[in-house]
Amino acid sequence: MNQLLLEAIVDRALFEDIGTGDITTESIIPAGEQARGLIHSKDYGVLAGVEIARLVFQRLDRQITFVARKRDGQLLQPGDPIAEVFGSARGILSGERVALNFLQRLSGIATRTRQYVEKIKEYPVTLVDTRKTTPGLRILEKYAVRVGGGANHRFGLYDAVLIKDNHIQLAGGIYAAVERVRRQIPHTMRVEVEVENLEQLQEALEVGVDIILLDNMEQAMLRQAVEINQGRAWLEASGGINAETVVEVAATGVNLISVGSFTHSVKALDFSLDIEV
Amino acid sequence: MNQLLLEAIVDRALFEDIGTGDITTESIIPAGEQARGLIHSKDYGVLAGVEIARLVFQRLDRQITFVARKRDGQLLQPGDPIAEVFGSARGILSGERVALNFLQRLSGIATRTRQYVEKIKEYPVTLVDTRKTTPGLRILEKYAVRVGGGANHRFGLYDAVLIKDNHIQLAGGIYAAVERVRRQIPHTMRVEVEVENLEQLQEALEVGVDIILLDNMEQAMLRQAVEINQGRAWLEASGGINAETVVEVAATGVNLISVGSFTHSVKALDFSLDIEV
Amino acid sequence: MNQLLLEAIVDRALFEDIGTGDITTESIIPAGEQARGLIHSKDYGVLAGVEIARLVFQRLDRQITFVARKRDGQLLQPGDPIAEVFGSARGILSGERVALNFLQRLSGIATRTRQYVEKIKEYPVTLVDTRKTTPGLRILEKYAVRVGGGANHRFGLYDAVLIKDNHIQLAGGIYAAVERVRRQIPHTMRVEVEVENLEQLQEALEVGVDIILLDNMEQAMLRQAVEINQGRAWLEASGGINAETVVEVAATGVNLISVGSFTHSVKALDFSLDIEV
Amino acid sequence: MNQLLLEAIVDRALFEDIGTGDITTESIIPAGEQARGLIHSKDYGVLAGVEIARLVFQRLDRQITFVARKRDGQLLQPGDPIAEVFGSARGILSGERVALNFLQRLSGIATRTRQYVEKIKEYPVTLVDTRKTTPGLRILEKYAVRVGGGANHRFGLYDAVLIKDNHIQLAGGIYAAVERVRRQIPHTMRVEVEVENLEQLQEALEVGVDIILLDNMEQAMLRQAVEINQGRAWLEASGGINAETVVEVAATGVNLISVGSFTHSVKALDFSLDIEV
Amino acid sequence: MNQLLLEAIVDRALFEDIGTGDITTESIIPAGEQARGLIHSKDYGVLAGVEIARLVFQRLDRQITFVARKRDGQLLQPGDPIAEVFGSARGILSGERVALNFLQRLSGIATRTRQYVEKIKEYPVTLVDTRKTTPGLRILEKYAVRVGGGANHRFGLYDAVLIKDNHIQLAGGIYAAVERVRRQIPHTMRVEVEVENLEQLQEALEVGVDIILLDNMEQAMLRQAVEINQGRAWLEASGGINAETVVEVAATGVNLISVGSFTHSVKALDFSLDIEV
Amino acid sequence: MNQLLLEAIVDRALFEDIGTGDITTESIIPAGEQARGLIHSKDYGVLAGVEIARLVFQRLDRQITFVARKRDGQLLQPGDPIAEVFGSARGILSGERVALNFLQRLSGIATRTRQYVEKIKEYPVTLVDTRKTTPGLRILEKYAVRVGGGANHRFGLYDAVLIKDNHIQLAGGIYAAVERVRRQIPHTMRVEVEVENLEQLQEALEVGVDIILLDNMEQAMLRQAVEINQGRAWLEASGGINAETVVEVAATGVNLISVGSFTHSVKALDFSLDIEV
Repeated sequence: MNQLLLEAIVDRALFEDIGTGDITTESIIPAGEQARGLIHSKDYGVLAGVEIARLVFQRLDRQITFVARKRDGQLLQPGDPIAEVFGSARGILSGERVALNFLQRLSGIATRTRQYVEKIKEYPVTLVDTRKTTPGLRILEKYAVRVGGGANHRFGLYDAVLIKDNHIQLAGGIYAAVERVRRQIPHTMRVEVEVENLEQLQEALEVGVDIILLDNMEQAMLRQAVEINQGRAWLEASGGINAETVVEVAATGVNLISVGSFTHSVKALDFSLDIEV
Repeated sequence: MNQLLLEAIVDRALFEDIGTGDITTESIIPAGEQARGLIHSKDYGVLAGVEIARLVFQRLDRQITFVARKRDGQLLQPGDPIAEVFGSARGILSGERVALNFLQRLSGIATRTRQYVEKIKEYPVTLVDTRKTTPGLRILEKYAVRVGGGANHRFGLYDAVLIKDNHIQLAGGIYAAVERVRRQIPHTMRVEVEVENLEQLQEALEVGVDIILLDNMEQAMLRQAVEINQGRAWLEASGGINAETVVEVAATGVNLISVGSFTHSVKALDFSLDIEV
Repeated sequence: MNQLLLEAIVDRALFEDIGTGDITTESIIPAGEQARGLIHSKDYGVLAGVEIARLVFQRLDRQITFVARKRDGQLLQPGDPIAEVFGSARGILSGERVALNFLQRLSGIATRTRQYVEKIKEYPVTLVDTRKTTPGLRILEKYAVRVGGGANHRFGLYDAVLIKDNHIQLAGGIYAAVERVRRQIPHTMRVEVEVENLEQLQEALEVGVDIILLDNMEQAMLRQAVEINQGRAWLEASGGINAETVVEVAATGVNLISVGSFTHSVKALDFSLDIEV
Repeated sequence: MNQLLLEAIVDRALFEDIGTGDITTESIIPAGEQARGLIHSKDYGVLAGVEIARLVFQRLDRQITFVARKRDGQLLQPGDPIAEVFGSARGILSGERVALNFLQRLSGIATRTRQYVEKIKEYPVTLVDTRKTTPGLRILEKYAVRVGGGANHRFGLYDAVLIKDNHIQLAGGIYAAVERVRRQIPHTMRVEVEVENLEQLQEALEVGVDIILLDNMEQAMLRQAVEINQGRAWLEASGGINAETVVEVAATGVNLISVGSFTHSVKALDFSLDIEV
Repeated sequence: MNQLLLEAIVDRALFEDIGTGDITTESIIPAGEQARGLIHSKDYGVLAGVEIARLVFQRLDRQITFVARKRDGQLLQPGDPIAEVFGSARGILSGERVALNFLQRLSGIATRTRQYVEKIKEYPVTLVDTRKTTPGLRILEKYAVRVGGGANHRFGLYDAVLIKDNHIQLAGGIYAAVERVRRQIPHTMRVEVEVENLEQLQEALEVGVDIILLDNMEQAMLRQAVEINQGRAWLEASGGINAETVVEVAATGVNLISVGSFTHSVKALDFSLDIEV
Repeated sequence: MNQLLLEAIVDRALFEDIGTGDITTESIIPAGEQARGLIHSKDYGVLAGVEIARLVFQRLDRQITFVARKRDGQLLQPGDPIAEVFGSARGILSGERVALNFLQRLSGIATRTRQYVEKIKEYPVTLVDTRKTTPGLRILEKYAVRVGGGANHRFGLYDAVLIKDNHIQLAGGIYAAVERVRRQIPHTMRVEVEVENLEQLQEALEVGVDIILLDNMEQAMLRQAVEINQGRAWLEASGGINAETVVEVAATGVNLISVGSFTHSVKALDFSLDIEV
């Protein structure tokens, strides 16, 4: 990940929380006072974001030392130490909430992703995320999906082509849309088209697209799609897939399953930071 | 809310998603083409964020007209129209996902908050949010809590005093911490202290703080705290309160209940945008 | 104070002064040349801003060493050394004016504030600042007021409620305005109302507001206000208070006196930086 | 002045004051309510900054109409209307303080400058400002000096050469310093050198510099300098010149007088904004 | 292209040129004066950037009207009118140079690209650009290549995979590098590998990469590569290709030819803006 | 040059190229891996930009060590080592292209400038650049001109006066334009006027301007201009001067020659970075 971009995200989060100053801490704690804080987990799950937590404290005060006790991707139990933070007591207290806010969200994403990945691990299928992310945090949320064992779909509208229903409707059909795209895009990109039924699937296969997103199809129709496809394009099932249905969808033989709830409906993991004496 | 700040948040979200350009849309849709899009709900819940959705399209293209069909705070059913968007087809398609990402998250927060508010509406208690928000979106998430009928706790470390366990420990006690704070803060701010047991509660009452946060206390202890307090300070229950326990906590007689999950564990509402012909 | 915010203010000041480069210094002084500069006072007064001066040189060149010889709040006489600066001669000369511009203004504010504070030190009254600050420097100017022994009123429109004449007029009265505010604001904030006569004072006391700003009242009326109040609300005298009248106002028994001229009409203290050989 | 730069300055001032939102106004005034505000003067002086006040309201809300009733440079009396503001009541109230903060400071600068200009108007001498300005507002403060009838010295370290005592000391003399500068600077710039005595003046004249700053010289020495110069270079008197001494300095025959207090020690003019019904 | 990004690029260019203000124009031209300017070509070539020129004037002053007389991609002769600009004389003069600087560079790129495209138009080969662009202008320069009839290679390190010699060396071979990449990248991306000889080509084909960049190969070796490939991967010739050699390289049968000089060594087209009376 | 400004330019270039991350490098190279890279020249020419290349790597990763083997201004041959880069292999590979893009362009400018400077070195004439620079890079491109032995004309519209044909036309003549300018500008600036024929030259001399730009004049007319001028103003020849004509123009006796092609039509020098094992 681009370090300059991560710093910009962290700085914005710190500005948002600290504003003109942490009046409680600045009133109570003398400027030079040193302390030691311990971040620990209060939940079961998969850790993600420990390097972002480090960055939070480092952007606040370069003299703070952050010693990670766990790495991203490791399993957590309640009570597990995540990191020790040494240095300015003011810096540790002022950065606490922002650091935990990143950790709780990213670990929540990694944990959910891992649960799905575990369920379908016997199938030759890849779980991918979507663009249904929190505005401003996409790079981190997609990182957390990778930590959880998922893969990334495109990062934005600029780095891949996905021709969706609205495009097809305005272009007047899959054929026209794909033709126009092929004349414009870098040769490094594949072309993906969203289809809603088997007629559209046929049309997409005839135009020779690389990837076909099967939108909101029942499992029976997914199976038919796999059969019709005969391995020509990669098939991606998408739409309302949850922890209950993911295995059945995986069993249909599609190559990819995209899951919006990895990032749009996150259950945060619980962490806390305690000053130790 | 500060309009300039909202524009900055929306612009960042658009940059994040569009990057160097929406290659699919720019390849398929001619520059001058006009279209009409309809945003509708696919879920039950409480709407929040419709003016942010408007801002997304307006920042992309000032010629786009956005006609809201629902206002924030209104109840939604699947199929309800939220807004119509007229103008550049390119602008509508390129802004779609960002607009929906704001809507789905803010409406998710308002919906959850409303559920809690409904449960405790017979008690003279106020539900408030926390600083456990998504980095970069706090102003919007706290707005969504108000839309759902909750109230806001402080916006950051700069606009209110909350003396927490770590502060008390470093200061060497509640008394010392409160004294130091009182010498520094504007007269417009109240002083709130977090306590973990009834001894600390007594100490806080003796120092005469305005608000006392009762951290992670069982209901029995909360009732004792209410009794000891005798209306002197405002009492705020906090820590692990969920949809099951919120009514019982409200029944203890505390004045405020803060709920982190309003913002840290959001279940998105589902919306979509369809181009109409 | 938020260190990231201070760095942003300092960086903007440096950009403003240095632009594309300090052509005089870059032409005359070789890149590697080292020097020692001494900042000293040329006035009587109270020092404020020495850490901002340090930040100016550190943002320009991390290799520059800045040794403060006085701390903020100390009394100054002409000739008093404030700080020594060692390192790149280019950096010292290019940062000189910006560092002095901060020092002269902040020390001017602290000095004026201290003069007022000294005058009223026998009265149980607090001197506070206003929002009549220089655009872009409010956090620093309010800091200088604290250095001078004053206290801060709110930092902006976002961190406290102050219902002013224009609000009351548009709301149709104090009662309506206060009611609306109480439904919206965080419980951590007090409510302050500006009143222009004793009828409005009565109305404000009946609604039970926490703080009442007595706007532009003669001393006789201030005394009446104190009597009517009977200690219920905090009373803040405001409007055209100067070095001559501040003692008499303090003697009326109000709790707070706000003084706009602390920040809107600053007489700079004189400092200079000399290269020593 | 660069409009994009002015917008950046105004936006920062608005962010600083409004932060996450104007809670008082947003609680009391409904979103659609319209109002009419009148800005008027409460002091005698010279107006400066009315277009900046306009910009403040326009950046807040493009629907607000601002009708200037006075132009910059006009004389003011208490009670004079400056501008009318029509539109969103929220916008008018939220922008009030920022608009007045710009007006009061810039008009204070123009007023002071005009006083000096009036005093020396019979002498063929130009009054100029310095770089002793408020960090972040230099472009506006130098504009206000022009409004008051003064002229501008350089805008920063990048747009003109001024060889000062510290440069001369490090270069080892005026000759060396001037030689180095001449090899580097654009041909569009003149060379100015600061001298502290008549020997340095002679040296500067021999090197043929264009402008000589006579630093902190008594009037007798200034007269000698004028005589020695014989019209070869432009002479600029500088250092501690105030309202009492400016006429005598003008009478010495120097070409320019620079006055730091125009911008470093401003007495604000008093303005207010009233909502009219 | 992302309109917000274009505005940011144009704003930076205007800041760079105008700084604190266009002193010549502001001194000479009254604020309200209107004028009509005509941009015309002084060269033969292909126009690119006319919408950026429009944006320059619109960012300076929204009241300026810009009427394009040519569209990007059209052929130019000396004297051809490009656009008319009506409105504030100040705005037209202050924006002139920035607008022309964009036009001259982008048209230079489009013209050069078109020359190459014409030469190889009988071959089934695509000409593409590289990342050898001017820092800060890549999105515009790649647009100009498209205007000239070329196609784009990747926009940066984030939107496509290109495994280069340094990667292969550090990974210990093509096989290892490709394997690691495949585990990480979105399924929407193809994999491209740079090879320097026919052994590496074989290795790349065995691993089944999608695109192979043939770096700095003689035409004879390029022909061998085409033969060995047998249509399995797309072949891209790269390295030192100029106007003389491009036809011969096209004749070798490669699918793509990348040309760094399209953007790194641009010969500007000449344009001027004249005020008409 | 202003270091903060250089960092901003470099950061933007890195953002542009790296975006969300260098996916190739991050996939292939482990985070901790160390490497050594060597930048060397592949062309003949004059080096410029080596400190910018250093800044590129330092902004990416403060742990990277950059050892320059050549200084700006030194002559280069193919194969000459320019700098060694030690540290994180990821950082070296991700920064490579941006560093080379700066180097190739700046060295191209210095090389071209040096060629012209060599040709006219026997004449007492100064070669200067123009404002025909690449948007966003002017400070660097003007630096490269100095490295090549040229001098700088003004940096923008803010730091010098150049009255051009369009100004004269709108003002109604040279006399009026110069008078207006003289009343407004700082005394540190000279006045330059562009003239197109000998009548205008006479007019400019009568008004006593400091510098006269002779626009697009034939050599015969330039000689006449020199004769008419008799050393009163500095004369600057401008317009379409190339490597063939520059000597003849120098021989006319003008004081300055401005050459737009130094910066608007740059032929990049070729550099590469190789990882060494």
